[in-house]
Amino acid sequence: MIIGSGEESIVADNLRVGVVGFTGYSGAELVKILKGHGGVDVVLLEHRSQTNLDKRVWYQETNRMPWSAESLIEGNISLVFLATPHEVSLELVPVALDAGAKVVDLSGAFRLRTTSNYDRWYQMKHDRPDLLAEAVYGLPEYFRQVIKVARLVSNPGCYPTAANLAIRPLITAGVLDREAGIICDAKSGVSGAGKRPSGNTHFCSVTENFSAYGVLTHRHVPEVLLTSDVEEREFCFTAHLLPVHRGILETIYVKTATEMSADDLRAVYQKVYQDEPFVRIYPDGEFPDLQSVANTNYCDLGVRVNPGTGRAVIVAAIDNLVKGAAGQAVQNMNLVLGFPETQGLL
Amino acid sequence: MIIGSGEESIVADNLRVGVVGFTGYSGAELVKILKGHGGVDVVLLEHRSQTNLDKRVWYQETNRMPWSAESLIEGNISLVFLATPHEVSLELVPVALDAGAKVVDLSGAFRLRTTSNYDRWYQMKHDRPDLLAEAVYGLPEYFRQVIKVARLVSNPGCYPTAANLAIRPLITAGVLDREAGIICDAKSGVSGAGKRPSGNTHFCSVTENFSAYGVLTHRHVPEVLLTSDVEEREFCFTAHLLPVHRGILETIYVKTATEMSADDLRAVYQKVYQDEPFVRIYPDGEFPDLQSVANTNYCDLGVRVNPGTGRAVIVAAIDNLVKGAAGQAVQNMNLVLGFPETQGLL
Amino acid sequence: MIIGSGEESIVADNLRVGVVGFTGYSGAELVKILKGHGGVDVVLLEHRSQTNLDKRVWYQETNRMPWSAESLIEGNISLVFLATPHEVSLELVPVALDAGAKVVDLSGAFRLRTTSNYDRWYQMKHDRPDLLAEAVYGLPEYFRQVIKVARLVSNPGCYPTAANLAIRPLITAGVLDREAGIICDAKSGVSGAGKRPSGNTHFCSVTENFSAYGVLTHRHVPEVLLTSDVEEREFCFTAHLLPVHRGILETIYVKTATEMSADDLRAVYQKVYQDEPFVRIYPDGEFPDLQSVANTNYCDLGVRVNPGTGRAVIVAAIDNLVKGAAGQAVQNMNLVLGFPETQGLL
Amino acid sequence: MIIGSGEESIVADNLRVGVVGFTGYSGAELVKILKGHGGVDVVLLEHRSQTNLDKRVWYQETNRMPWSAESLIEGNISLVFLATPHEVSLELVPVALDAGAKVVDLSGAFRLRTTSNYDRWYQMKHDRPDLLAEAVYGLPEYFRQVIKVARLVSNPGCYPTAANLAIRPLITAGVLDREAGIICDAKSGVSGAGKRPSGNTHFCSVTENFSAYGVLTHRHVPEVLLTSDVEEREFCFTAHLLPVHRGILETIYVKTATEMSADDLRAVYQKVYQDEPFVRIYPDGEFPDLQSVANTNYCDLGVRVNPGTGRAVIVAAIDNLVKGAAGQAVQNMNLVLGFPETQGLL
Repeated sequence: MIIGSGEESIVADNLRVGVVGFTGYSGAELVKILKGHGGVDVVLLEHRSQTNLDKRVWYQETNRMPWSAESLIEGNISLVFLATPHEVSLELVPVALDAGAKVVDLSGAFRLRTTSNYDRWYQMKHDRPDLLAEAVYGLPEYFRQVIKVARLVSNPGCYPTAANLAIRPLITAGVLDREAGIICDAKSGVSGAGKRPSGNTHFCSVTENFSAYGVLTHRHVPEVLLTSDVEEREFCFTAHLLPVHRGILETIYVKTATEMSADDLRAVYQKVYQDEPFVRIYPDGEFPDLQSVANTNYCDLGVRVNPGTGRAVIVAAIDNLVKGAAGQAVQNMNLVLGFPETQGLL
Repeated sequence: MIIGSGEESIVADNLRVGVVGFTGYSGAELVKILKGHGGVDVVLLEHRSQTNLDKRVWYQETNRMPWSAESLIEGNISLVFLATPHEVSLELVPVALDAGAKVVDLSGAFRLRTTSNYDRWYQMKHDRPDLLAEAVYGLPEYFRQVIKVARLVSNPGCYPTAANLAIRPLITAGVLDREAGIICDAKSGVSGAGKRPSGNTHFCSVTENFSAYGVLTHRHVPEVLLTSDVEEREFCFTAHLLPVHRGILETIYVKTATEMSADDLRAVYQKVYQDEPFVRIYPDGEFPDLQSVANTNYCDLGVRVNPGTGRAVIVAAIDNLVKGAAGQAVQNMNLVLGFPETQGLL
Repeated sequence: MIIGSGEESIVADNLRVGVVGFTGYSGAELVKILKGHGGVDVVLLEHRSQTNLDKRVWYQETNRMPWSAESLIEGNISLVFLATPHEVSLELVPVALDAGAKVVDLSGAFRLRTTSNYDRWYQMKHDRPDLLAEAVYGLPEYFRQVIKVARLVSNPGCYPTAANLAIRPLITAGVLDREAGIICDAKSGVSGAGKRPSGNTHFCSVTENFSAYGVLTHRHVPEVLLTSDVEEREFCFTAHLLPVHRGILETIYVKTATEMSADDLRAVYQKVYQDEPFVRIYPDGEFPDLQSVANTNYCDLGVRVNPGTGRAVIVAAIDNLVKGAAGQAVQNMNLVLGFPETQGLL
Repeated sequence: MIIGSGEESIVADNLRVGVVGFTGYSGAELVKILKGHGGVDVVLLEHRSQTNLDKRVWYQETNRMPWSAESLIEGNISLVFLATPHEVSLELVPVALDAGAKVVDLSGAFRLRTTSNYDRWYQMKHDRPDLLAEAVYGLPEYFRQVIKVARLVSNPGCYPTAANLAIRPLITAGVLDREAGIICDAKSGVSGAGKRPSGNTHFCSVTENFSAYGVLTHRHVPEVLLTSDVEEREFCFTAHLLPVHRGILETIYVKTATEMSADDLRAVYQKVYQDEPFVRIYPDGEFPDLQSVANTNYCDLGVRVNPGTGRAVIVAAIDNLVKGAAGQAVQNMNLVLGFPETQGLL
């Protein structure tokens, strides 16, 4: 095969979806997943200078258009994925909606409901409270019905995806001693920090290292407070950087209001997740690790209890680029465009 | 230089110390540190078949003797390091003491004070309550004076070294809301699991992975309970395996009884550790990582507080093979044999 | 989803294929690829004690049978993959053939044509010269037509797959100064060493390390000599262990008989590989790396020439578990069973 | 210990040496080695904005001065290390020499003897042919006597250090079939690429990857040609990037003019290196790896021969930051300032 000579086959009746930010880690993962989806054709929408442009071969075979409202209309784009910084998403979302496209935004620009949250957590003036009100938080396990009819889906952050799937069932079931707090010790691979080179992501800074960052102040915190209905004073979150490419593992410490066994807690989860295709509850004594979920859209949960103390540990694992970003984005697209929810993801 | 032809120079007046288990990770680190110490000559004491024997060159240049009471006496060994499994240490310690040698035992065989603790945490019948009573827990920051006159020093476990240095000052100062618990989320490099090959330590199981293990049941737990005077129901410990060779980082979550600032908490630590050569307190906003302490005998501590909530996070980092094992063992040797405490370690 | 509760759906008309050795790295990769193939149902054939058995969830959902001739017949198994040590394959291949199943053997047991090769390179008495004569070397780019009608396909070794795809076109085209030799400096990820734990594959031995092994004596050497028609005195092969999970990169040094440009050499490759779906030739100035081919069945080739010297460097990259093992095995299965050659692999 | 409160002790009679570029990898390694040397006091010379400034604690305890001729004179600096880019070294060397300081330059600015070499290999106009003529190539194993009396020592590149130590003895002994070429397949850790963040050194680009670069055109090539007296048409050099922090391993392929055993070749090396403190020849069947030399100033060499073919493989390993940079620089300083050559390095 001579590289670069190939022609991309287009399936005539497929819906067309666009990707902005396809050179970043989430964007590239998104393109990879979409190419195996079968029901959509992917158009790469070039926005600003693509300074990070990866010269890998397969990009040469792909449909490209410059980003613009006209492109969306002429290109007959049904849905646009924005794998862009939040400032950029804030600018592009209205353009896409006006052009009649649905949007799945992978940035944080529409996750927090109120402009004051953006003042505090993103140090950003948010000038579209109307779109904040309209945006649907794209965690399908909880908001499936509204996602199906949304114009704008705000894809959850990577850390909150795992944290909410682990914490919300316990809050809803009312089984926690909330005064004792909910401690979330989170660890992420380096792709979560994005592709822009920096001293912190230099190989020599990361290999044979492990570090805490964003201790107590990470901007993903409010997504957990809002989605799992947790008070800020109850929640303690620390992020850490793992010397791996991809994956998130969160170790979550809670205290139950009354004595519960691990089986009791698993029953809480199973009741909520028994029909969910992408949440797996582990049997007694087993915990997921990063390799359990790498390159999948699963969120895996393990539970252990310290008998007689009320203290429990929940371990949650996801692939930050899949269930934590691109995979969940495709799951949301499936809901919005009417595909089976798991298409392209199993 | 032709490898293997060298002769090791012996300094006539140096004290002679022996190392059993010199092929393991802690043992090899110990030999490396001792060779730079300047005040002692090292004798490798060969015990049982050395199936793991590392053929690295420098071993060929080193003094060796078979392990035996006679070797200790004839070899004029002042102190023996045991970098051996706990069952082996239990067997060798009495022999060494009877031969007139002091002992620094790097295993867990003499850390837990009572035989019932061994029944529970090590699933081992311990038949030497007399030596458990005599053994001194070798955490110099707290037990320096008794270490100096001890025959048998029990070198602390790697996880408890960091945990106790972080937790005990807060307990002693009485500043914690102990009902809220003390959560220790601990992460260790693979050398902490020892040199014996297993599926869990295979490169392909560890790279691009991260996993929890020993959730709530790790045998290092009682060392923290005993040393920091913590109740079991208050303490929650989870160990994780990092894809790195060496290093431990522990993220510790506490709640203070009354509102305290990070400066208040740092003042608690500084009062205790201001003259300690191997404990460093980080300034506001900074945390140690594994590279901060790699190949050193330091334990580094960083503190952050969530204002208005009473919740605080302490990050403690050590090199598990140095302050968590061989370095601390040499620190103990220095105390026992009358060397300056930091000799060979700075 | 409650793990372990699932039922595997069986597609009635699919052909059934068996996998022996499904707990090893190649075997597990094979099962993963086959599950996405669409045209076959996979049966796990349990041979001997599965001491390495991975408890990952998906194994619980899979069809299993004990290995036996009866299982093959009753299970209506059309083709068996043997991802087993070569001694085991030597024992199982006749059983499978007698039971009427086709075989793709991933071991080295049938790659070398003559029993004397096994005396020398495998230190093994090979008692089935008849099957050696019958076995077809499963490198589809060269032996596609005979693979299609074979009963027994011997899947190539990982190193020789890349080496032969890089070297054979140059030999066939007669462009090399063969007296100057063909130097193949090969580097492989750790999965190439298999799953059995050993000191050499312990994480701490591999991380932050890189080592040569099998210098000049690797048992993959004869596969290159036989397939590319190279004399032993011309060929110089050294294997190295990379601190990565998967991937092989080979840097191959040759001298051309007459001055040739890189374009001239690329033209040689393009003539041979222009219609090959799994061999990609890189444009001028570009070379593949491990990430170029990870998790794909591609063999990527890059070329550079040192003008005026006749010296050229070829860089070949494959994923050792895919094109170097399981992927190529499925490619061979596709040929044997009449599927499109790329099914399940693109 | 309260970080940042310490005072650095100054030994009154020690010589004072300066380091420019102490924030880079080589510079930081240099400071670390010099602090353990015992015979010199280190002054950090701040040149331009130190944008990469590492806030690690120990920098706070160190003597600092701005870079200037006055600082060198008033600071009574005997020798300056330049761990700076080659353009910067070209500018700073004359200043230091005029101020009466000796210089060990770790850049490539004075390694290549002629200005035309800089035109070709560094694409740089070199305007100081006088200093090129004066500079001594700091490979002590070959140029010890002239280094001792030099004002300006040009510290060798990392790749050429290993390559010359492996190749030059064979050239000098006249044992090679030089028409067959000298192939050097070199692999380096990421610290060799420097500390400046880039896409190529991003953790996610390096982990689980391995790539060739500078194929046949690396600027370290002429250092081998000049030092080992090799013709360009005979020499074939390819550099590769290893997913490790530090270390270089070079696999070197040669053909001997007449049949020689590995012992014969080892004898060639032993004759040259028998009294060298930092070159170690491995016994039959053994090869060094990166861990053999990590954090040491050794260059280790292993040899194997393919009987009957004349082909031989030499494996050379160094730590690129020690023997390949900072360690060798201190070795050179020891020679220039009259210390024992191994002081601070064993």
